[in-house]
Amino acid sequence: MVEALKIGLLGLGTVGTATAGILLSPESRHPLLKEIEIAKVGVKTLDKRRAVEFADGVLTTDLEAIVTDPDLDIVVELIGGLEPARSLILKAISHQKHVVTANKAVISRYGEEIYRAAAEAGVYVLIEAAVGGGIPIIRPLQQSLSVNRIDSILGIINGTTNFILTKMATEGSDFSEVLTEAQELGYAEADPSADVDGYDAADKITILATLAFGEQVSLEQVSCEGIRQVSAVDIQYAERLGFEIKLLAIAQREQSGLQVRVHPTLVPKEHPLANIDGVNNAILVEGDPIGQVMFYGPGAGGGATASAVVSDLMNIAAMLKVSQAVNPLLKIPQHPRRELVPIQELVTRFYARIICIDRPGVIGNLGTCFGKHKVSLESIVQIDFNNGFAEIVVVTHNVKEENFRQALAEIPHLDAIEQIQIPSVLRVLREK
Amino acid sequence: MVEALKIGLLGLGTVGTATAGILLSPESRHPLLKEIEIAKVGVKTLDKRRAVEFADGVLTTDLEAIVTDPDLDIVVELIGGLEPARSLILKAISHQKHVVTANKAVISRYGEEIYRAAAEAGVYVLIEAAVGGGIPIIRPLQQSLSVNRIDSILGIINGTTNFILTKMATEGSDFSEVLTEAQELGYAEADPSADVDGYDAADKITILATLAFGEQVSLEQVSCEGIRQVSAVDIQYAERLGFEIKLLAIAQREQSGLQVRVHPTLVPKEHPLANIDGVNNAILVEGDPIGQVMFYGPGAGGGATASAVVSDLMNIAAMLKVSQAVNPLLKIPQHPRRELVPIQELVTRFYARIICIDRPGVIGNLGTCFGKHKVSLESIVQIDFNNGFAEIVVVTHNVKEENFRQALAEIPHLDAIEQIQIPSVLRVLREK
Repeated sequence: MVEALKIGLLGLGTVGTATAGILLSPESRHPLLKEIEIAKVGVKTLDKRRAVEFADGVLTTDLEAIVTDPDLDIVVELIGGLEPARSLILKAISHQKHVVTANKAVISRYGEEIYRAAAEAGVYVLIEAAVGGGIPIIRPLQQSLSVNRIDSILGIINGTTNFILTKMATEGSDFSEVLTEAQELGYAEADPSADVDGYDAADKITILATLAFGEQVSLEQVSCEGIRQVSAVDIQYAERLGFEIKLLAIAQREQSGLQVRVHPTLVPKEHPLANIDGVNNAILVEGDPIGQVMFYGPGAGGGATASAVVSDLMNIAAMLKVSQAVNPLLKIPQHPRRELVPIQELVTRFYARIICIDRPGVIGNLGTCFGKHKVSLESIVQIDFNNGFAEIVVVTHNVKEENFRQALAEIPHLDAIEQIQIPSVLRVLREK
Repeated sequence: MVEALKIGLLGLGTVGTATAGILLSPESRHPLLKEIEIAKVGVKTLDKRRAVEFADGVLTTDLEAIVTDPDLDIVVELIGGLEPARSLILKAISHQKHVVTANKAVISRYGEEIYRAAAEAGVYVLIEAAVGGGIPIIRPLQQSLSVNRIDSILGIINGTTNFILTKMATEGSDFSEVLTEAQELGYAEADPSADVDGYDAADKITILATLAFGEQVSLEQVSCEGIRQVSAVDIQYAERLGFEIKLLAIAQREQSGLQVRVHPTLVPKEHPLANIDGVNNAILVEGDPIGQVMFYGPGAGGGATASAVVSDLMNIAAMLKVSQAVNPLLKIPQHPRRELVPIQELVTRFYARIICIDRPGVIGNLGTCFGKHKVSLESIVQIDFNNGFAEIVVVTHNVKEENFRQALAEIPHLDAIEQIQIPSVLRVLREK
């Protein structure tokens, strides 16, 4: 590589600006950064004040012209969203450009198509910034950890929901209050659905599962529940029982196949993920023979995400310096897409909060019903209300989800149970 | 690469056996592992029962013959200790073999010599297993994180001392009791000095600092204190003040240069490193623009360390597949060896426990003395003893170590102070 690599940046928002900031101040960073030059930057409008300055002719509103420009080596896609991001990435690939992207939505849905196109064109597509912001997780999964048989990945990979759950726990506030606060602070969007309903985490665990297990997972296969149902009282009870409630994204190898899911989960306080607070992310990887390793850090933010984007650029520069051959470390899934294990077959612990009229025999009836469905209880705690109602909190040992759901469905029909409500059913991190 | 890569393994202890175990069961691991073959294994004696079986002629007691064998591509050094490990590594390099080693003692002392020899011979020397056991830290520092300006590395990188400190905290026991227990459990050596006096952590932070800052650090430059002086009562007081005591290895960029040190440190309970318990390791890297990222996992053990060894083997296989050229990602320090910042110039917080005769004016005298030396106090707590003595616990704001030491030296000469003892002086993780 005699000349600098020329890159075209699509998007100059927070991450794009921070990416340019790193490349324009290469001192005390990896020496290869000096060999990367920002040649074009695609923006929506030219007449806006920017935090970084570029030479005349670098800024353009013509994104198509960037991805087809024969002078560019790499396209960095940072505009987000599905279209035109997907089409621009594919067009850049078909014009022999390497691609770096932070776009988890595009990769989780169209990753297979994009990687196939890249393999045909002989270019790299690197995605370190798509999951976990600045935390190095994609590359360790592909390299250092890939000599292990990966058993599971457990992640807190959505900062917004972790911020909300942390606030709810420390302040005792309810979901809707804290959501409003998070929106005012800019930690949650006006339309918070992608975060609070778990879709963003689902995108990310789809990507991690595909890499870790070498099997193409698709987003539609992922079972997904958000945090809207988690109440302040659930967090209090969990606390009393020794747990924190976290929105976990989980990919697990089961005997019958892979299981991939996102849902609020009770995590024992002594578990490494229990202490991950605020907008931080953490990903816990378990494999043989390594045991557990965890990666922790800022899951979002311009600077952190830009660190991941630029590390991908540097890695492309390094690989091109060695050879034009395709990097064998970028492993394409070895297995075709398969069915995941359905959520009914999940083996986990459960927490349920049950309210009904307080009369003798309630606990006994519940115990018998759970037993009949092979649901073994770890604890059952009754709190009596003043108004004649009892609130009963149940934590199970490992059970099959299907059995637990059948038991729950039968409870309203039990003799001693009247005016029942089951305001909360949550999964508890399973026992070993 | 048409043929499998042939490796020679030096040492078949816990890590060697686990390394062979991974290579001999490549299913569900990275496909490149199938292209690595164990051709020779060097051991002390042939007539010992082993957990893994090898074909006839693979085991040998002639280590020299392995490192000079023209049929071998890679030598994996797992015998530990300084000699003959260093000589064998250098001889392997001079015979054009790539080297993978877990030997932190050799790399921290002779890394410069070894890397220079490797650069001349055009071979790789990979050391992921030398720090943090299975935790991927060397490669992320060289790759993903290297686009950042690294400001600091804080690590709990010695499992034995962390186990001892955790036990002392949970059981209220004293150092010597817990050390005996750790020795019985096999977590501490019969001669525990390398661990409890901080030398093992010093080896490892030397390696991390050299990589992170691109500057050759040598072991003799590292200021090193172990945990023998930490008492159960210090841990209790720290607890009351909201801290955990951890043996931290710290490399920090200061305005005047680098500072590298190992010492017991009070860590605020809400800090990510405060929750790292038992034999686990964690490394917290802080840089611009990424902020803080932490890597956590098993810092020792056969399987975890073997995972790191084999990931290095796989990376060599991958790089050789691309080209015989030297990998530009393996950055050799860009700067020559420089002076580190002396410990006297350290700016940190301090904790001190002072015992003296309880008389009026003691606190005032102490406060005035600290103030005179520009030491600002965060808290000063007096506990009266029955026997006429007072125990006083002091925590400072950020101060210069030199100023604090001068104040301490003056305390015995103060008017109100009689029969003084200062049983503990510990550093507290500094304020931002």
